[in-house]
Amino acid sequence: METTYFNGKFIPKEDVKISPDDRGFLFADGVYEVIRWYEGFFYDINSHVTRLKRSLRELRIDWPEAESFPEIAKELIKINKQDNQNAMIYLQVTRGAAKRTHSFPSPQVPVTVYAYSWSFQPDKISAGTGIKVMLKEDIRWTRCDIKSIALLPNTLSFQEAREHGLKECIFVRNGIITEGSHSNIFFVIDGTLYTHPESNHILSGITRKNILRIARDAGIKIREEPVQENGIRLIQEAFISNTSSEVMPVIELGGNILGNGVPGPITRIIGEKFNNEIKALKG
Amino acid sequence: METTYFNGKFIPKEDVKISPDDRGFLFADGVYEVIRWYEGFFYDINSHVTRLKRSLRELRIDWPEAESFPEIAKELIKINKQDNQNAMIYLQVTRGAAKRTHSFPSPQVPVTVYAYSWSFQPDKISAGTGIKVMLKEDIRWTRCDIKSIALLPNTLSFQEAREHGLKECIFVRNGIITEGSHSNIFFVIDGTLYTHPESNHILSGITRKNILRIARDAGIKIREEPVQENGIRLIQEAFISNTSSEVMPVIELGGNILGNGVPGPITRIIGEKFNNEIKALKG
Repeated sequence: METTYFNGKFIPKEDVKISPDDRGFLFADGVYEVIRWYEGFFYDINSHVTRLKRSLRELRIDWPEAESFPEIAKELIKINKQDNQNAMIYLQVTRGAAKRTHSFPSPQVPVTVYAYSWSFQPDKISAGTGIKVMLKEDIRWTRCDIKSIALLPNTLSFQEAREHGLKECIFVRNGIITEGSHSNIFFVIDGTLYTHPESNHILSGITRKNILRIARDAGIKIREEPVQENGIRLIQEAFISNTSSEVMPVIELGGNILGNGVPGPITRIIGEKFNNEIKALKG
Repeated sequence: METTYFNGKFIPKEDVKISPDDRGFLFADGVYEVIRWYEGFFYDINSHVTRLKRSLRELRIDWPEAESFPEIAKELIKINKQDNQNAMIYLQVTRGAAKRTHSFPSPQVPVTVYAYSWSFQPDKISAGTGIKVMLKEDIRWTRCDIKSIALLPNTLSFQEAREHGLKECIFVRNGIITEGSHSNIFFVIDGTLYTHPESNHILSGITRKNILRIARDAGIKIREEPVQENGIRLIQEAFISNTSSEVMPVIELGGNILGNGVPGPITRIIGEKFNNEIKALKG
């Protein structure tokens, strides 16, 4: 039986009762985080806590216990006997349940906090072969920097990609390639690593940040600059990143085969260095 | 005790249990409608059913019983003894509860359907004096034509308006005034009634549609054309519309007093004709 966290208690999932008045259900008025457990430790959980606090602050959702996320996550791993596994932990915080009105509840109501963990098998085959991804106009709002649960456009776009046999949908806004439906994207052009700069048009990925650090340490030249859709022919390599996929090579982008149609050398170097960092942390 | 509708049953609200796996809670993956009960009848419920079916179709949410919305609404009014009152009925349909993944559940799962009704007092004071509204950059996605529950940007914008003592937030996209956070907006310029044309940047309001019909029948010249923010000084009158506010005069727009700062003559004529139509339906 799966144990989840709900408003301060660790209870069976089937006992979790979200109110139909919850603003997460009615208005997408909430934020979330996903962290990864590597058979014994969380990877860079502090950055996830920092981002969670930023998301909450941007939406003015008041959860003073945000710092308790690592403890909640650890307890879920323990209770669900996932200590020696690869696992993911999902946490969601909404503005709480109140009579439906667009404005924030007044007086304030307690937030809703829900978290759960699940065993997770990394997609090693795709990491080896690389994936094909779709390119599509970004239909999302202009506060993509907030990790909110208003993910309808992301789900619609990702679904469209899947129906085309593609593994991710990469967005284009005003001619610029921004990020994926649930990943950031990197490009290699003439030996330089490009990724969209932090802005309101992308979510600032924790894996993105760590990849930039790892690449910099490896002496790879980095430019946090936009790459134009009409410059695709200049791209020799690409990869997407997120907490579950880490460094995932992209071999086809919007129907354009990149480089030789196999994961490129700089992508492989970064992927290996990322894996080495994980191995070193495992000790 | 309040009775609600939940997945085929009429049950007390406290017995409604939304799953934490519900895609409405996790992804804002759902649609909604709000209809009004005028002490004995629903106003233009057929248009709401048509719009609900369109929203479901656009999101590919499969609820074959969408035509039962009027029966559900009627039953809620009856059970909650609101027959002789002004009341509102809210209905929400989500893609259902399934293991969290951005793509649609495969195989498909049953949708979640939730509805409730509440007694409602129209704001007659504001309808008399008119309201002041904020103007703000539209931060929403580009499928505003779908009545989805991904309303986070709407709530944030409306909240901001309220904190400035204003009654609605009106959006501007690329210099064009589109609509409000939960209303459409009309302008009178040199005796002609303007409102933003149907597009992916506005929700096609049922009240908007009926106002256009009523105004046309009254011999008022109509243009479904965008009005620019930099053309505000040309506006003599404005009003917003939605199911709860009907025709609500706007006397100040983004700090600009309109006309004489009181509801204008064409706004009043349209408001009266709308009220007369309701009265005639009451018989």
